Amino acid sequence: MNAAGIVVEYNPFHNGHLYHINETRRLSNADTLIAVMSGSFLQRGEPALVDKWTRTAMALHHGVDVVVELPYVFSTQKAETFAKGAIQILHHLHCQSFCFGSEDGRIEPFLETEQKLHDHKKQLGALIRAFMKEGISYPAAQTKARHELFGEHGLPLDLSKPNNILGFHYVQENTALGSPLMPLSVLRKGAGFHDMQAAGSIASATAIRSHLFSNRPIDGLMPDQAASLLSSRPLHSWEHYWPLLRYRLISMPTERLAAIYEVEEGIEGRLIQAALQNDSFHSFMEQVKTKRYTWTRLQRMMTHILTDTDKATMQSHEQVSYIRLLGMTETGRAYIRSIKKELAVPLISRTASGRHLLELDVKASRVYAAASGIPEHDTASLLEQEFSRPPLLL
Amino acid sequence: MNAAGIVVEYNPFHNGHLYHINETRRLSNADTLIAVMSGSFLQRGEPALVDKWTRTAMALHHGVDVVVELPYVFSTQKAETFAKGAIQILHHLHCQSFCFGSEDGRIEPFLETEQKLHDHKKQLGALIRAFMKEGISYPAAQTKARHELFGEHGLPLDLSKPNNILGFHYVQENTALGSPLMPLSVLRKGAGFHDMQAAGSIASATAIRSHLFSNRPIDGLMPDQAASLLSSRPLHSWEHYWPLLRYRLISMPTERLAAIYEVEEGIEGRLIQAALQNDSFHSFMEQVKTKRYTWTRLQRMMTHILTDTDKATMQSHEQVSYIRLLGMTETGRAYIRSIKKELAVPLISRTASGRHLLELDVKASRVYAAASGIPEHDTASLLEQEFSRPPLLL
Repeated sequence: MNAAGIVVEYNPFHNGHLYHINETRRLSNADTLIAVMSGSFLQRGEPALVDKWTRTAMALHHGVDVVVELPYVFSTQKAETFAKGAIQILHHLHCQSFCFGSEDGRIEPFLETEQKLHDHKKQLGALIRAFMKEGISYPAAQTKARHELFGEHGLPLDLSKPNNILGFHYVQENTALGSPLMPLSVLRKGAGFHDMQAAGSIASATAIRSHLFSNRPIDGLMPDQAASLLSSRPLHSWEHYWPLLRYRLISMPTERLAAIYEVEEGIEGRLIQAALQNDSFHSFMEQVKTKRYTWTRLQRMMTHILTDTDKATMQSHEQVSYIRLLGMTETGRAYIRSIKKELAVPLISRTASGRHLLELDVKASRVYAAASGIPEHDTASLLEQEFSRPPLLL
Repeated sequence: MNAAGIVVEYNPFHNGHLYHINETRRLSNADTLIAVMSGSFLQRGEPALVDKWTRTAMALHHGVDVVVELPYVFSTQKAETFAKGAIQILHHLHCQSFCFGSEDGRIEPFLETEQKLHDHKKQLGALIRAFMKEGISYPAAQTKARHELFGEHGLPLDLSKPNNILGFHYVQENTALGSPLMPLSVLRKGAGFHDMQAAGSIASATAIRSHLFSNRPIDGLMPDQAASLLSSRPLHSWEHYWPLLRYRLISMPTERLAAIYEVEEGIEGRLIQAALQNDSFHSFMEQVKTKRYTWTRLQRMMTHILTDTDKATMQSHEQVSYIRLLGMTETGRAYIRSIKKELAVPLISRTASGRHLLELDVKASRVYAAASGIPEHDTASLLEQEFSRPPLLL
């Protein structure tokens, strides 16, 4: 069999995702489509709109054959680490290709840029270190170093666009693994990542979430099955975790706060002060954010505070050491059977069997289930699912 | 000046408390009445029905001249430790007498019992140790040892009644300090501690809380001013902390849970399991409680889990090391001025000035303010008060 891999969050699943699936099948000629999907907390440091089981069902209903979970240690991280975990998993699952949506849409600029940056690795490193010594942040120093070395438009790929960046890191990790997968890219159609306006029937997930939370109709922006699955579930947002995060921030010892992953020295006092003063997550974030601490960076930090995940724990999980199955179609089952004996890491179907490995993912799911004040939200049943549910079969 | 001390929780203030105040004045002949009052969390391991400022106002309006806070390290403890902190504070404040309500109502049985137990300390200790070796709990072994030594009714005081027990510990601590205060007792009139039926105009605080939470009228059971103060405030119960406690229980590392004060080896797993399965504090408690882990004992444990207070922290605060002023009348102010220079521990008027000492109390107040889902509850303003409010003056 021949599998293609994609990396997704489906927060929620929309027409753009359907296009990505269909294009991946067309370009890769694969008979099996595998999605690595973030679990309870996502790359931008947010709780998923709906639980991972519902998002798995959306994927299976719309053309994905196997859904596996991107572990918490990778899913809540900057592009580089997120990409590393995802591509490692697709590698472990013996995919022959992977395909990502990008603002560019062609694969060549990714490969050429990767090659060019690789060839100038030493000079770039030296420049970046020099800029950082001047007090410039790492991402800014990186951009500045590239401009200095290649000119402002000297790279084939525009690395200021979020999906180009993510795609670039997929390609880079794939190269680091010895290029086992053929890389493919499709043009992101319609609206941009954060655009609030729908372009035809394709709107960004950000726009759809905004519609949902303000009770505006989303007719036609999601495929029917996905829309129907979504409508049956309570919607999660950071505001539903604000009572918990606030409680945690105002009661935890400062030393513990300082030990949390991504919490940098000096910000602890400001976080506690803002938690004391604000009655919503939004106003808290508005007070805390600065040029240095962007919204996304802060959200990731808040995710780790909420889940009480410290630096030592995160640093001890640098490689993919297990793969958790969330769901499969008939085709997906056949594929998994065909590769099962060649797997280098354990494939986990139920929490119970991989408890010691899944520790962080289980905790993230528990915290996700502890959301406060969502009407009809049933913490106990969500937790029950985390512990006893086998992969969804379609 | 001549001060009498009382130890109170006022949860909420009712006619029985007014009787206690009037009788204390009559029996002691004091010109100043000082109340040591539990702050945010109470002796039975519960959040106070209303914040400590409102309860201070109730006290000042109904005859108390000075209200000081019984620190968290004493207020959330078994009778012995609770009594120790309270009597030490009254001792520091140079009270000449103290007066407590009891089921007995006379002071002599307390003094005689204290003497008798003191005289047989060694034999009692040996018997208790022997019984405990047989696997009997400390309180049960204590009772059994007393029965063995003195017969079932051989002590002048019935030490099976909750207020007799508390009073006995007040007397015992006062003796340990060299009997600086004259002990007095008044008969608890009307309803018993937990009785749900009002006896005339006196109902227990438990009964009043039950009326309040089920929206039944409490007409005539509280003095007017106290009733009016209460009606303006949101009411706190354990259920308002359940989302926070549950979140904490299901996300904290087991080692941390085991380090929490009062958490005993072996119960951690049961607590986490029950937190996963229950949607209310009440059903959680029903599932966890056993003959060994009584409701009150568990509630105290839950208080320490909620405030993240560990064994090491509690054990480092065995003596009273500061006194926090919550409110005063004119008379109270004059009294405090008159003794100010003779105080052996710092008297703290505002959090800011005693921050390093008040750490645990401040944290308890922060957690208290973090209550979730109380209509019209304003966390930020309650927190603001904790940090900037000077003692209430009447």
